[in-house]
This record gives sequence, structure tokens and C-alpha cells, in this order.
Amino acid sequence: MALKWISVLLLIQFSCYFSSGSCGKVLVWPMEYSHWINMKTILDKLASRGHEVTVLASSASILVDSSKSPAIKFEVYPASLTKNDFQNVFAKLIASWIHNNPKYAFWEYFSQLQEILWKYGNCIKKFCEDLVLNKRLMTKLQESKFDVILADAAGPCGELLAELLKVPLVYSFRFSPGYTVEKRSGRLLVPSSYVPISMSEFGDQMTFVERVKNMIYVLYFDFWFQIFDLKNWDQFYSDVLGRPTTLFETMGKAEMWLFRTYWDFEFPRPTLPNVDFVGGLHCKPAKPLPKEMEDFVQSSGENGIVVFSLGSMVSNITEERANVIASALAQIPQKVLWRFAGKKPNTLGSNTRLYKWLPQNDLLGHPKTKAFITHGGTNGIYEAIYHGIPMVGIPLFADQPDNIANMKAKGAAVGVDFNTMSSTDLLNALKTVINDPFYKQNTMKLSRIHHDQPMKPLDRAVFWIEFVMRHKGAKHLRVAAHNLTWFQYHSLDVIGFLLTCVAIVIFIITKCCLFCFQKFVKTGKKEKKN
Amino acid sequence: MALKWISVLLLIQFSCYFSSGSCGKVLVWPMEYSHWINMKTILDKLASRGHEVTVLASSASILVDSSKSPAIKFEVYPASLTKNDFQNVFAKLIASWIHNNPKYAFWEYFSQLQEILWKYGNCIKKFCEDLVLNKRLMTKLQESKFDVILADAAGPCGELLAELLKVPLVYSFRFSPGYTVEKRSGRLLVPSSYVPISMSEFGDQMTFVERVKNMIYVLYFDFWFQIFDLKNWDQFYSDVLGRPTTLFETMGKAEMWLFRTYWDFEFPRPTLPNVDFVGGLHCKPAKPLPKEMEDFVQSSGENGIVVFSLGSMVSNITEERANVIASALAQIPQKVLWRFAGKKPNTLGSNTRLYKWLPQNDLLGHPKTKAFITHGGTNGIYEAIYHGIPMVGIPLFADQPDNIANMKAKGAAVGVDFNTMSSTDLLNALKTVINDPFYKQNTMKLSRIHHDQPMKPLDRAVFWIEFVMRHKGAKHLRVAAHNLTWFQYHSLDVIGFLLTCVAIVIFIITKCCLFCFQKFVKTGKKEKKN
Repeated sequence: MALKWISVLLLIQFSCYFSSGSCGKVLVWPMEYSHWINMKTILDKLASRGHEVTVLASSASILVDSSKSPAIKFEVYPASLTKNDFQNVFAKLIASWIHNNPKYAFWEYFSQLQEILWKYGNCIKKFCEDLVLNKRLMTKLQESKFDVILADAAGPCGELLAELLKVPLVYSFRFSPGYTVEKRSGRLLVPSSYVPISMSEFGDQMTFVERVKNMIYVLYFDFWFQIFDLKNWDQFYSDVLGRPTTLFETMGKAEMWLFRTYWDFEFPRPTLPNVDFVGGLHCKPAKPLPKEMEDFVQSSGENGIVVFSLGSMVSNITEERANVIASALAQIPQKVLWRFAGKKPNTLGSNTRLYKWLPQNDLLGHPKTKAFITHGGTNGIYEAIYHGIPMVGIPLFADQPDNIANMKAKGAAVGVDFNTMSSTDLLNALKTVINDPFYKQNTMKLSRIHHDQPMKPLDRAVFWIEFVMRHKGAKHLRVAAHNLTWFQYHSLDVIGFLLTCVAIVIFIITKCCLFCFQKFVKTGKKEKKN
Repeated sequence: MALKWISVLLLIQFSCYFSSGSCGKVLVWPMEYSHWINMKTILDKLASRGHEVTVLASSASILVDSSKSPAIKFEVYPASLTKNDFQNVFAKLIASWIHNNPKYAFWEYFSQLQEILWKYGNCIKKFCEDLVLNKRLMTKLQESKFDVILADAAGPCGELLAELLKVPLVYSFRFSPGYTVEKRSGRLLVPSSYVPISMSEFGDQMTFVERVKNMIYVLYFDFWFQIFDLKNWDQFYSDVLGRPTTLFETMGKAEMWLFRTYWDFEFPRPTLPNVDFVGGLHCKPAKPLPKEMEDFVQSSGENGIVVFSLGSMVSNITEERANVIASALAQIPQKVLWRFAGKKPNTLGSNTRLYKWLPQNDLLGHPKTKAFITHGGTNGIYEAIYHGIPMVGIPLFADQPDNIANMKAKGAAVGVDFNTMSSTDLLNALKTVINDPFYKQNTMKLSRIHHDQPMKPLDRAVFWIEFVMRHKGAKHLRVAAHNLTWFQYHSLDVIGFLLTCVAIVIFIITKCCLFCFQKFVKTGKKEKKN
């Protein structure tokens, strides 16, 4: 009996298809930096369950490389950019993004953001061309007969590959500005009255003025802002597929959308059956720290430690900002571990140590950790939620201001502005999240929500990818909205028809009344004459 | 090692709260017949996990009684109706419902339906009054300190109890006509362009005419049809709670909505984080049949058997209809097991046996079963889906026409009209679902979808009820729409404000232009004069 149960458990743990007993072939279109870190967790799990995982990596790939992933196959294709070019594009984008703080030049910020996204999109388009126009490689991929494509929707191409290879598609996705992709391709509904639009930095308890602004954002993102240079992409997709199509239409064919958040992080909003929220799937219990680090952490005594990182994309900041930060950190009783690759700041206190890299998850899971100073990347915030550590947010770019706004609204973080904060601002923020139990309590509440789900996010992500492999899609989860034109979708034809009917009825009734009235008046006059 | 795993499994199987190790107290507001059959599955599971389950049963209860449920406590309160009165109300409602076929008198059908629902609602209101005005019982319930109320939303009162006892509420729900309750209380979004409104009998691939009709249904249900006599209910709730409130507002406070369908049964549509679709939670593998029945089934040989039931509410039909049916059944090579309590029809064939009760699930799970003739109740359809048995639908009332329409659209059933069908109609329908592999294939597809979910429906239902107990609610899953007034929810204040702004801007620009024009014309005229 006992052996039977163990074998059932082993079967659940290690087999992939259950029913047929066979494993599948997964093709992956990944994005860089934190996107890759997150997706790799899924791929490792898929590989550990016996699936054959092949990642498409360009010769210019930054983090997406084979060296660190022995269980995953990498198909490296020659790209028309070098790794250096690609890194420079990112560096410039981030610098310009950080510099343009939305609070000071609202519209300028968004027009700059569009430029940033287009530049980034053009890089991705080059990679996509390098891939799909590489006949030898495409023939090889065709012959490999993959069962599913897992693609990061933040950079198009996965959906084009899915069409070319006739393989069902699953997306991993964080968000798009204004939820444009979610709405236009995924057919998600985002009512502006209670769902704060992405990039708005609002909570879900909006004042009237915030709801007005939220509606303006919606109108702006729907009718003005284009996250991709759509004309170019649409033309490219139409050329490659040999039929008129659009980027959004092709993206709309995805079988499942795995969003990298959950309701511990986001505000609840309408969703769809082919959407699952798998935020924090990369989180795991802390491992022991290296000896030197553990000794430093233990030396903090009762006061504990503060962990500080600005993420995988920002390794350096100006000397002036570094000194402002270091001076604040020097004034707290906690020991501080700071991930920082720049010149050692003059104001650095004896309680602060600089590291080129930090075992962030292991530190956040350490019982001595009191607070996390973070740029507000989704992965880092999820590690803090997982371990219940309150945050000081210094958002820099992309979804980070929104993420920190969410954590502030949920009472798990205090935010400071990177460009304008003084040492006192950072010091006060730190003191608040460490000493006011409100923040610890709220973060623990989010942590409890995160840990108390019907199924772990990683297991759900793997389940749906395997489901799509088993059933060659998930059409039963797909709303019929995908088959409608935009005017049918918004019922404009039906409303037009009904209004026309009403107008005709009113017209006929009016005519009849007029006719009767004239008849009556004439008869009356005649009678009077007679 | 083996023992450790067994103990983990036992812990998962039998403990309720995991973290704290303690069990909870569940108060239940049930509805009758198939609603009770479904809910009892959840209650038995909760009881088997160690929770104390108390069901509120009136002295007029029909199926909701203590005799069959030793693990569940019943709190029986004296009602102002007798069991006979209550049964008569149901009998009359069903008779009038079956008689008024929507295909022949569309608007008459809906006005009659409203009357039926109001009559039924008035019974429920009487029970609700009997309960909440029973001071002794209410004090007892107050003192019992329940952790959660599980209520069937088809009959109000559970939400009033939840308010009075200050206990979080979880709903079990099938649907409301026009999705009124789901929209107004649950805040679910139901776009008419691709979601067939309940009671419309449309699939999700609607023609233009169907979309027009669907929109008319939406308008009708939103502005004309009232499923409850709201004035009465609102007044009653306001009186009892001692503050002005409404039925729908009170219902809107539910923490979780457990819908008794899934995407094997329904067409995919927008949903919300505090909604889970747990359709078919009562389904289970077939048990062996009684000896006599098994012998009869085996005597069918290669041809197999057909199972026929019109559900738990209809025990009798007219002699004429019974003869039409029996004559059709007599002409098929299969053996037939028919649940029928009326007079033996003259045309009954030797292949057909009548039974007062059938072990329906065990028969549908029998390898000899070829088809299921059903009235289209949700429970029965789910048993057919679970075991992959194609259906002939003879819908009678309530959601049954809609359910059969769904199964027809999914290619798992053929429908016939109870009032007008001839023997040949039924015979042809039976031959089609038995001999055309299309129906078996589609039903097996639905069955595969049903069995291939991340977690079993019953486990999910229990998880969410326990979650609400553990966390005293599930506020993180609740959209902020609940805090808005109807005009805020539809952004009417924001749209009004923005249009006013636009109007003011246009007005000012026009005034300026007019002013400049007049100035210019006057100057021109003066110059001309000079």
C-alpha cells in the first residue's frame, strides 16, 4: 500500500503526460534579464519532468545562454546585432527612461516611452527576421515537430513562429502599457472605473479625479500611444505568412496567457478562462548563505539587516546619488548588504557592505532581514512577498513605478523618488517600514495570500503548458470574441440596427399621427364649411 | 520514508486548516431537489475533513432532511408552510413552466416565468422570515460562532444571515435568468456580442440576428424582467438590518462565488478572481449495479443500453406523452432503463423496463451505456459528460433548455421538444446519437476536458470555503467595483465631466472665433467706410 502511494507520488512528480506516458517538445522564445530569470524557472521544471526544452537564443543574447542551463537545449542563430550593440540599446533605453520621470513631464514621458519601446521593438524585429528568414534553421525547427511554443509576449515573434510551425502557443507575460496587448489580442476587459490602467500608478480605490485621469489614460493608450511600430510589424507578419494579417491578430491566437502576477500583487480585475495568474512562480525557500555573509548578517544582532538591490539591469548610478544613499544607510542601526558595482561612495558607513552580486532570495528569507530596498522589479517584489519582508521602493523604469504604487496601496512599501530623494527621505522611509508594525503586518498578509493558493503558481504554469501539449490547444477556454470584428465585438452593428428600427418606428408613428391629424383638421374644416 | 508519505497524504485528506490544525464551523442555507443533491457533496466532504456542518432546514423541507446525512447536523426550524404546501408550489410551478413553451409564446413565457419566480421567491421569503424572526434560534446561531456560511444563491436569505451573524459568506450558484444576479451582485461582465445570455438558448457562435436577439434579451432582463419581487425583499432586508439596503447589495458582499459549471459545459466568458467554476463536483466513478439490473444490462449484448430519466422533480407525465415515448423506445435494438413512476404505457416494448428510481451515475458509467435521454438538469448532464455518454435532450423547465442548447452546440446532444415530439422524432434523435460517431467523439472530448483540470472541482470548492474560514474572507479577490455607485461603475460621472470640459472648450473657441470674426468684419467695414 505504502509503495503504491510512493509510486503515485513519483509519477505525479516526474511524468509529464500522465495518460499517454510520453513527454513533449517545447520551443521557447524568451526575452532578456528578469524576463529570462522568471521563464527559466518554468523551463527547468519542464525539463525536470522529462520534456525536451529548446530555447531560441540569438548570437547577441545577454542572459539567455547555454552555460548555466545544462538541462535545456539552446538553438543559437546568428543575429545582425552583436551582444555589445544589444547591451548598449538596453543601457541607453534605461538611462533615458530613468531620466524622464513621469511626475515632472507627463506627456513628454509617454512620447519618450513610445520611442523607447519602438527602439526596443526594432531590435526584437531584427532578431525575429534573423530567425524566420534563416531557412536552414526554420527547416530544422519544422522537422523537430514541437508540441508547444512558450513565448514571452513582451517581444513579438513567438506567435509568428507558432503560425509558421503550426504549433500551439502559450504566453508568459507581465503586462503591456495601457493593457493594450491584453485588450486587443487577449480580449481581456479592463473597466476604467475600478481597474487602474497599467502605468497609471493608481490603486483600485480611486478618487473622482483619479478616475478621470484613469479614463484619459485609457483613451490615450487606446487611440494615441502605440507600444509597437505596428505598421512595420503588420507588414512584416503579412509578408512572412503570405496573407494580410496584423501583429495583434496573430498574438490573439495564443491558447493560454500566463500572467506573472497574482492578487497578492495586483488589484483584482476581470479575467478570462484562458488566463492564469502565476506570479511568484520563481520563489522558493531560502538556502543557507555563504559563511562570510552569514557572519556579517549575524553580527547585526537584534537590529537585523537590510537588503538593497536595484536589480539585474542597473549596475551603476551617479556618484552623487550613491553618496546620498550611502549616507542614509550609514544612519540606521541595521547592517546593510548592498548590491552595487560602482565606485565605493565616500559616505559609506561601517554598517554597509557592497557586493557585486547578492543571493537575494536567500537573504530575503533570512530571519534577520527587516527590510528590502528595491527598484521594484516584479521578481524582487515577489521574493519579498514570499518571505514577508516590507519594502522601500526606488522605482526606476518600466513597470517598477506601478509595482511600487501597488505595494504602497497594499501597505507593504514606502516609495521614494530616485532622482530627487535626499538622505533624510530615504532614512525616514527605511525607519518607517522597519519600525512601524503596519508594514510588516501587511507584507505578512500578502505573504499568507501568496502561500495559500489552490495550487502553486509554478505547478499551474506547468499544468497549462502540458495541457496545451496534450490537447493540441485549449480552444474550450477561448472566448468567441476572437472571431468578431471590432464593430461586432462592441455590438456597434447591433446597436446601429436597433436604433434604425426605433427611428423607423418613430418615423412611421409620426407620419401616421400627422396623417390622422391632417385628415381630422381637413374633415373638421370641411364640416365647418358645410 | 514510506510511512512519512502516507502520513502526509492522510493529513491532506483529513485535516482542514493545515496551518493551525483546527477545524471550522459551517452554516448552510440550502435549496431543494437537484440544488441540494449537488450541495450535499460539498457538505459531506467538509464533514469528512473534520468540519462541523450545520444545515438550516425548515419543517417543510422536501429533500433537505436529516435521515440521509449522519455526518451533518440539521437545525430544523418551524415554518409557516407545510411540506405538502411547499411540494404543491413546486408541482404547480413546474406544470405551468412545462406548459408554456418559449418557442410558441415568447413574451408570454417570460411574463409567466417572472410570476413563477416571484411565487417561488415568496415561499423562500416566508422561510427566511420564519428563520431570522425566530429569536431563540437566532441567538443559538449567534452563540455558535460559525466560521463561514455556505448558501445557495438561487434562494435569498444566506446573505442576510451572514450580515446578522457577521460571518463571511460563500455562494454555490448555478445561474440567474439574464445573469442579473451575477451582474448586479457579483459584478460579472457579460458582453452581449459573444456571451449568449442565460435563457437565450444560443451558442457562442451567434449570427447577426442572434446577436440582435441576444442584445434584446440583455435589455429586457436588465430593465424589465425582475427575478425577485425586489421591492418586498429590499424592504424586508432593510427592516431586519435596521438600515436602508437592498437584496442585491447584500448579496454583493459574498466573498466567493462557486458556479456549478465549467468550460466543458458553458461557453467561455469573462470571469472574476472571486469566482470559481466547480461544475460536476458531485461526479464520481460508477459503482456496481444491483444484481437484477446488471443482468438486464448484460442481456443487451452488443447493442448496449439507453438510460432515461426526467430528473428528481418530474415523476409523472401524461398518458399520451408516455405512450409516444414508449413507442419510440420499443423500436430501438438497445435495452432501455426508464425512471418512471406513472401508469405503465400501453406501447411499452419488451426492451424497456420502468424503475421508480435509477442509480443514474452507476448506469451512465457502465461500459454498455450508449446514450442518455435526459431532461437536461445540470447534475445529470455532468454525469453524462463525466462518463462520456452522448445525450438526447428533452428539456422541460428552468435552465434545462439552455443546458441542452449548450450540449447541442458542443455536438454532444440532440434535442427534441417534449410537448410536440412524435415517436419518430425521438426515435431519430436516439438513432443519431447512438450511431453517428460525431456525438460520441464530442462527448468524449468534453469528458477529457472535464477530467483534465489543474485541480478537481470538489477540491477547489472545499479549498475556497476553507480559505474563507482561515482568512475570515477573501477581500483580496474582490473587485473595487463593489464600492462604486451604478453611475460611477459605468463611468457616467467621468464621461459627463469630460464631455462638459470638451463642450466648454468648444464654446470658448467658438466665442473667440466669433469675436475675432466680428472684430475683423467691423474693422473691414469701418475701413471700407473710411
